[in-house]
Amino acid sequence: MLTVLFAAPDLWGQYRGVLPAALDAAGIKAQVVQKAAPGTVDYIIYAPSAPLQDFTPFVRTKAVLSLWAGVERIVGNATLTQPLCRMVDPSLTESMVEWVVGHALRHHLGMDAHIVNPGHVWTPVVPPLARNRPVTVLGLGALGTACAQALAGLNFPVTGWSRTQKSVPGVQCLSGEDGLRQALSGAQIVVTLLPRTPETENTLNATTLALPARGAVILNPGRGPLIDDAALLDALDSGQIGHATLDVFRVEPLPQDHAFWAHPRVTVTPHIAADTRPESASGVIAENIRRAEAGEPLLHRVDRALGY
Amino acid sequence: MLTVLFAAPDLWGQYRGVLPAALDAAGIKAQVVQKAAPGTVDYIIYAPSAPLQDFTPFVRTKAVLSLWAGVERIVGNATLTQPLCRMVDPSLTESMVEWVVGHALRHHLGMDAHIVNPGHVWTPVVPPLARNRPVTVLGLGALGTACAQALAGLNFPVTGWSRTQKSVPGVQCLSGEDGLRQALSGAQIVVTLLPRTPETENTLNATTLALPARGAVILNPGRGPLIDDAALLDALDSGQIGHATLDVFRVEPLPQDHAFWAHPRVTVTPHIAADTRPESASGVIAENIRRAEAGEPLLHRVDRALGY
Repeated sequence: MLTVLFAAPDLWGQYRGVLPAALDAAGIKAQVVQKAAPGTVDYIIYAPSAPLQDFTPFVRTKAVLSLWAGVERIVGNATLTQPLCRMVDPSLTESMVEWVVGHALRHHLGMDAHIVNPGHVWTPVVPPLARNRPVTVLGLGALGTACAQALAGLNFPVTGWSRTQKSVPGVQCLSGEDGLRQALSGAQIVVTLLPRTPETENTLNATTLALPARGAVILNPGRGPLIDDAALLDALDSGQIGHATLDVFRVEPLPQDHAFWAHPRVTVTPHIAADTRPESASGVIAENIRRAEAGEPLLHRVDRALGY
Repeated sequence: MLTVLFAAPDLWGQYRGVLPAALDAAGIKAQVVQKAAPGTVDYIIYAPSAPLQDFTPFVRTKAVLSLWAGVERIVGNATLTQPLCRMVDPSLTESMVEWVVGHALRHHLGMDAHIVNPGHVWTPVVPPLARNRPVTVLGLGALGTACAQALAGLNFPVTGWSRTQKSVPGVQCLSGEDGLRQALSGAQIVVTLLPRTPETENTLNATTLALPARGAVILNPGRGPLIDDAALLDALDSGQIGHATLDVFRVEPLPQDHAFWAHPRVTVTPHIAADTRPESASGVIAENIRRAEAGEPLLHRVDRALGY
């Protein structure tokens, strides 16, 4: 009988039923508990809201399994020496693809002018076809790759950029500093789906925001710090960036006095682009515990040096 | 040297360069003219705006090639005995898919509440996944089929309905009166892409609008008369239909005094969902003339009895 410590109290209500069921379905005999003596814990289920900060006493723990895709708040914890796994939830990918494709098409089609049209203006101006609207996706992890391929499937010419060179069918893949410049140059829609690491902070800044086509749209469903907020506001005010639709922020909920709220060229969505669904996340956790117990490699294990 | 009469004066500026180039590229020796003695005309390029109404004197004309997909304004013309072809422009299909998928995702994601959010409300309510949002597409012609498949590709469970039974991979296909009832029952998004015929008029009426899930969304990029306007307004007022996004209307431009303009649950787009692009349409016309000259069957020939 394994002991699985569920260390995210605020999520207990969502997981108390589905996680034991998923473990049971995977043939794993385990008790899922909110409290246990550290020395008895086999696996820890973790979220950024977890009060747990000192992993030292968990001497028997075989893995820390995050419910979040982003692990920036835990990866630097020096007491965490156990293997750490990110959540790559298939439903999370689906929901991210839906948000990214939906907002890309919203801007592509110029929907806002129809949604809010108090003057009842009938101006039949046809947008260009998607095939003539270059899109760049920064970050080609599981989420970025899925979004890039979905956009390419709708005929957008898609360029993807990642730290290390990737290969994604139907997507022009670039990497490195020069690759970033090339990927952003002339883009009409830029999607930021990079992991949050010291290297990715302010990837979009005054210099890089000058590279896309004038009036380009920024979609950020990744992490708030990927963008220099002040530089983005300047680029929006100058018209270099035509609109920014942002789902993530340096401080969440976005403070009421932040300039993004009132800016006419900014749409705020409340961190809903991708949210872990308890049913599918529980299945991923059960599979990783099954693998660990069988001596197989863990899925989505974090590389501490890279930070993701 | 063939004589091609371009009978749509208002579109001449868009086609005068690209149509001769497309014919030339297809190896067809032809002059494209705006005026010619009827007895000398080999092909007529037609649009609903064309003043030409009497096709009787065009005794030598081998085909009338429409620049529009919908041919309801010409198909009943008794003087038209020559073969008539609809435009099935690949770019028209692409643009239709973009409009339908974009507005489906807009409603699916509840975007409007974020686009217009004067109270700066942060409510992180996650929408269901597309896989849990049933969509029904009425009409499985070239456009309806492409839209149904694109929506299915984003994981929406898609049901398609057509007059005659069709088979579309990944789409549940229904037909007939009972099939229509079944297709609409419980749908959360309904897309109307039926041809305009006497049989399809008011397909969405007081009876059929009661079938979708309460609060369902109607997307009409097909033809205005597919929907009984008064019944739709009643269904919107009662909340049975949550929103209607309409691209086509019985009278266009939509008159300023029409209730759709001011209705808070209606979005009007100005007949932009699918518009023929001169470059690609010219290629389709050139291919059809090549086929006619080679004695091969014409593409997209209209069946007069069916009306499309």
